[in-house]
Amino acid sequence: MNGDGEEEQTAFEIAVVVPRRTGKQGDESYDCVEFLVDVFRKAGLIVDRVIGFQEEFIKLAAPLETLGRAAAELQLKKRTHFGMDLPFEGDEAEAFVRQPDGSLFSWCERYHCYHHIIYGVVNKSKSVITLKSDGKEFHWKSEESLVRKLELEGIVKEVFPLHDEIKRKWLLRNWALNWWDVTRQPLDEIYSYFGTKIAIYFAFLGMYTRWIFFPAIFGVTLQLVDFGSWQLLVLPVFFISIISWAVLFFQFWKRKNSALLARWQISCPFGEDPGYNFLEMEWSSFQSPVELIKKWGNDKTKEKELFQRKEWFGCLMRFRNDAIIILSIICLQLPFELAYAHLYEVIGSDLMKFGLTVVYLFAIQYFNKIGGKISVRLIKYENNESTEYKADSLIYKVFGLYFMQSYIGIFYHVLLHRNFATLRQVLIQRLIVSEVLENLMENSLPYLKYSYKKYRAIRKKRKREKGLSTGKTQFIYRVEKEYLKPTYSASVGAELEDGLFDDFLELALQFGMIMMFACAFPPAFAFAALNNITEIRTDALKLLVMFKRPIPRAAATIGAWLNIFQFLMVMSICTNCALLVCLYDQEGKWKIEPGLAAILIIEHVLLLIKFVFSRLVPEEPAWVRANRMKNATQAQDMCSKQLLRTISGNEKTSSLLEKID
Amino acid sequence: MNGDGEEEQTAFEIAVVVPRRTGKQGDESYDCVEFLVDVFRKAGLIVDRVIGFQEEFIKLAAPLETLGRAAAELQLKKRTHFGMDLPFEGDEAEAFVRQPDGSLFSWCERYHCYHHIIYGVVNKSKSVITLKSDGKEFHWKSEESLVRKLELEGIVKEVFPLHDEIKRKWLLRNWALNWWDVTRQPLDEIYSYFGTKIAIYFAFLGMYTRWIFFPAIFGVTLQLVDFGSWQLLVLPVFFISIISWAVLFFQFWKRKNSALLARWQISCPFGEDPGYNFLEMEWSSFQSPVELIKKWGNDKTKEKELFQRKEWFGCLMRFRNDAIIILSIICLQLPFELAYAHLYEVIGSDLMKFGLTVVYLFAIQYFNKIGGKISVRLIKYENNESTEYKADSLIYKVFGLYFMQSYIGIFYHVLLHRNFATLRQVLIQRLIVSEVLENLMENSLPYLKYSYKKYRAIRKKRKREKGLSTGKTQFIYRVEKEYLKPTYSASVGAELEDGLFDDFLELALQFGMIMMFACAFPPAFAFAALNNITEIRTDALKLLVMFKRPIPRAAATIGAWLNIFQFLMVMSICTNCALLVCLYDQEGKWKIEPGLAAILIIEHVLLLIKFVFSRLVPEEPAWVRANRMKNATQAQDMCSKQLLRTISGNEKTSSLLEKID
Repeated sequence: MNGDGEEEQTAFEIAVVVPRRTGKQGDESYDCVEFLVDVFRKAGLIVDRVIGFQEEFIKLAAPLETLGRAAAELQLKKRTHFGMDLPFEGDEAEAFVRQPDGSLFSWCERYHCYHHIIYGVVNKSKSVITLKSDGKEFHWKSEESLVRKLELEGIVKEVFPLHDEIKRKWLLRNWALNWWDVTRQPLDEIYSYFGTKIAIYFAFLGMYTRWIFFPAIFGVTLQLVDFGSWQLLVLPVFFISIISWAVLFFQFWKRKNSALLARWQISCPFGEDPGYNFLEMEWSSFQSPVELIKKWGNDKTKEKELFQRKEWFGCLMRFRNDAIIILSIICLQLPFELAYAHLYEVIGSDLMKFGLTVVYLFAIQYFNKIGGKISVRLIKYENNESTEYKADSLIYKVFGLYFMQSYIGIFYHVLLHRNFATLRQVLIQRLIVSEVLENLMENSLPYLKYSYKKYRAIRKKRKREKGLSTGKTQFIYRVEKEYLKPTYSASVGAELEDGLFDDFLELALQFGMIMMFACAFPPAFAFAALNNITEIRTDALKLLVMFKRPIPRAAATIGAWLNIFQFLMVMSICTNCALLVCLYDQEGKWKIEPGLAAILIIEHVLLLIKFVFSRLVPEEPAWVRANRMKNATQAQDMCSKQLLRTISGNEKTSSLLEKID
Repeated sequence: MNGDGEEEQTAFEIAVVVPRRTGKQGDESYDCVEFLVDVFRKAGLIVDRVIGFQEEFIKLAAPLETLGRAAAELQLKKRTHFGMDLPFEGDEAEAFVRQPDGSLFSWCERYHCYHHIIYGVVNKSKSVITLKSDGKEFHWKSEESLVRKLELEGIVKEVFPLHDEIKRKWLLRNWALNWWDVTRQPLDEIYSYFGTKIAIYFAFLGMYTRWIFFPAIFGVTLQLVDFGSWQLLVLPVFFISIISWAVLFFQFWKRKNSALLARWQISCPFGEDPGYNFLEMEWSSFQSPVELIKKWGNDKTKEKELFQRKEWFGCLMRFRNDAIIILSIICLQLPFELAYAHLYEVIGSDLMKFGLTVVYLFAIQYFNKIGGKISVRLIKYENNESTEYKADSLIYKVFGLYFMQSYIGIFYHVLLHRNFATLRQVLIQRLIVSEVLENLMENSLPYLKYSYKKYRAIRKKRKREKGLSTGKTQFIYRVEKEYLKPTYSASVGAELEDGLFDDFLELALQFGMIMMFACAFPPAFAFAALNNITEIRTDALKLLVMFKRPIPRAAATIGAWLNIFQFLMVMSICTNCALLVCLYDQEGKWKIEPGLAAILIIEHVLLLIKFVFSRLVPEEPAWVRANRMKNATQAQDMCSKQLLRTISGNEKTSSLLEKID
């Protein structure tokens, strides 16, 4: 995994796809693809051109200097040896911390730089430049981005990140196919290959799987051992212990998350705002502090008002959107789900049931798609501060939909019909379905798509080159193979989320399923544990083999999902209490007897435990905080004198100016 | 309020109390008091000596230069015009933001400096200096603090801050006696006279009083208007609305708090650690980053382990202490309180009841004192990071005691005896008692103490000067009057908390009383509103007239009390549901009918509301955050280049050194 620096720099990491043109190659100076390649070369990129079956691929690599220049232009904040994040500068590269694998920039930063270089090529001359492509002519206006223009014209079909064969193979061997490691994963390597967000997902999945062994063993024991007259007492004990387990798990996950970020030298602790970058832009116009203070009377209050108005408007919009989603879920989805559950219960014949389920499955596919689209549209009206906020907002909304869909039918069985047999059956069904089918689907569907595309590409090529067919035609370049692979994208709203959405959704729905009905079917945890062990490897395989390399995202926590998991936990306190009441009150007397009162008390105690425990275990390990503090202090100590001089210098100048006025 | 700088500097703000010596004043060079005054003068303080009836008072004032020197020695972090907090330096005084009243240092900072100057006088010579006082001789060792030594010897009796007559009178006129302002208060002036903590208390009290008008009006309406058949529906509506009111109130309080801090240019937002100063000391020994990185293999992990061990040990100690407190409250206090409540219910004769109550009141006084002492001792074993953390820990523990004491008897009446008449009676009793008696006590007790002390002082003086008595003897210096006034201290653990503890406790107990039994007695809110209006003025009066000027504290939020208020709110959701169940289920059937189920559902919905609402209203107003961000960015922009150069310079040097090695 420790490729030396030289090798690192020359790896081709981005491919730009342009159509394969007709053979004639005269008049190169005006052909836009030739022009584009020329421009990339001038921008300092290393260009390799590959002509595939149907398209031409421009593979790009960036030497360190080019990346450094782009990073300096972007004012990319990077961790320095002092722990402070400072804007990158080429001359002072040694001040910045290197990645665990020895390179200066992380994959996410490199991608950011590539993006900046590729899309940053603008027409700097004042005149319009005319470009030609296969006889078609178009005008590249002043200050227009070349690649954007070409995308609009349909010449640049896609810009996608390329897999790094050496690292990919290493990961495949040591991670995806290394089943014997069970929950152990090479997280540092995953981080440096896929970026923070995906590494955090796998870290979470691994830790979740490790922790789930405890309730799994407990649950199976409960199922196998007959406790006789103690049976009535065992379930509440199980209930309390799994809730405590969940509370502790999430607290320790938060600690693990911040420890990981400290290891990767990423500074985004829980307290800080991801909105930083957004605000920074607004304030880039530097204002003298004296001016600011003087303006307190008029401008400051105005500014404050502006902010407040904006803030409350944002709140209102968010509130409205949430209300719309919640109301539509309650008024539209709930009756539909209940109708299905009721019909399923009522209908006698198995064939009819099967038909109903098929119709239902199609209907919910459609529903989810509509729901996702509506959510994405609604979110556009919210002025969320960054893309990650928007993505979180989407996650909450869409999860609401899935939550209703997944659990309301089960609740119906439990609460209205007290049908525990059906409940257990449904739980086993869903868990096995999710285990076997979803993992299969996840991997096979992309592969089938890819195979079909490849087949079509080869057939087309054959058609075109009829008669000329040789063995060589069968050879397909790796870059074209990758191009044909599907993108790692979410089932809803591709613009805000990537495939992690579906993976997390699966995990959250599974968590909800096993937690909320824990008392009805304790061995569910064992199913989940098995599922997660396979999930780790199949997800790894999916990312490494089935998909294009995903675009790296900077998000450093699991974001909205943590809140969703915690919400599910609180829900599970309530539902398990309801389950226990149903279990112990089989005659339907609904009388508050000591047992029932005890359950109510247990509920309240657990709710208390949830909030007390979360306070007891600090979210950030002490050593991480100490490190952070030390860094902040060091940096301040270093620059405080100089800063003070500058500030008071400013002050003096401005007061002098005042006197002159 | 805008005393100009000149006047500000010469105000005497600290008094040192030494015994009045016998008349003979020869041999001054060896007299320790003369020596002390000399030393103070040399340290740059302005000294004024007042000879009172019994003691002699050394009044101290510090010119700006002296304060500045002390602040620079202390490396006092001060807000600069760039919004960054930097250590103070005398030369660059203009870089620092001035207080709202135009002075450079806030009262808290000034006190800190005075403290440093007064206690910082050490024997710099290597030899022991012999000092004399009224014939007694003692040795001032090398490196020993003079004032500490004199305190040990009983010569310096007290060091206390002095009231500023001009500002005090202004505040008295415009704040304490200005009843027509109802809840409006001159917060900026309070802040500059008393420091952050007290100003935040009054801001909280004012806002709480303003907000409580709404439920007060609602509650009184409920009492006065007869809703007929709707009566059953009105109470739940009232219940839901007061819970929403409380949730919103606390969210808006957090916003108000951060807005106030932004106005006063204090940087302690909710996310940040107050533990900063503690850690800073540890890290003051500067370590080269390269060394640190190299040590990753051995030292870093060791350090991490050390931190983790310390952290978990701290957790364990805290857990143990909390367990001790909770267990002793449940096992010792609960039976006692229940016994009292039961006896009170059982005993028929009024005289016996009265006697029982008297015994009970004495017993709980004693209990509280013991509880406080135990808590303080337990806290000493916790390695809390700062004094404010310790104070918070004490608050939680002592509040647990008071919580049991105040409410368990009431719960007993409600739940076991369903005695709503007694409940209402108890509520009215307690509210009126707290309104009238406590306010009276608060003000009269210190006054009586003060009067008694003054009387004794004058009588002693008279005795001593028998026959010489003239009109002049009756004249008592202001500084002596202040010396005779009691200190603003807490009823428990004077070392960790000041009088604000009792004021907040009163407020919290009142809040719990009106919230937890809201459905049983809605007009309680009106009582509380009246109480709070008087509370604002009487507390102000108390601070300005009855007590010595309190020692300023830097804490910038209401700390533990916010959590306690929120805990009481959650408790009130549960208790009100229980009350509603009791009210609607008068026959004691305990059957889950639609009404009862509805109440259970309401409870869960309200708990949900609590956690959703708190997410909906951001804790920090957008403009405050934007301001903070802007400041951080500006500061970073300014020093990033220089910092980078320094860091990479360090890197280069160290790598050179490596090569040489």
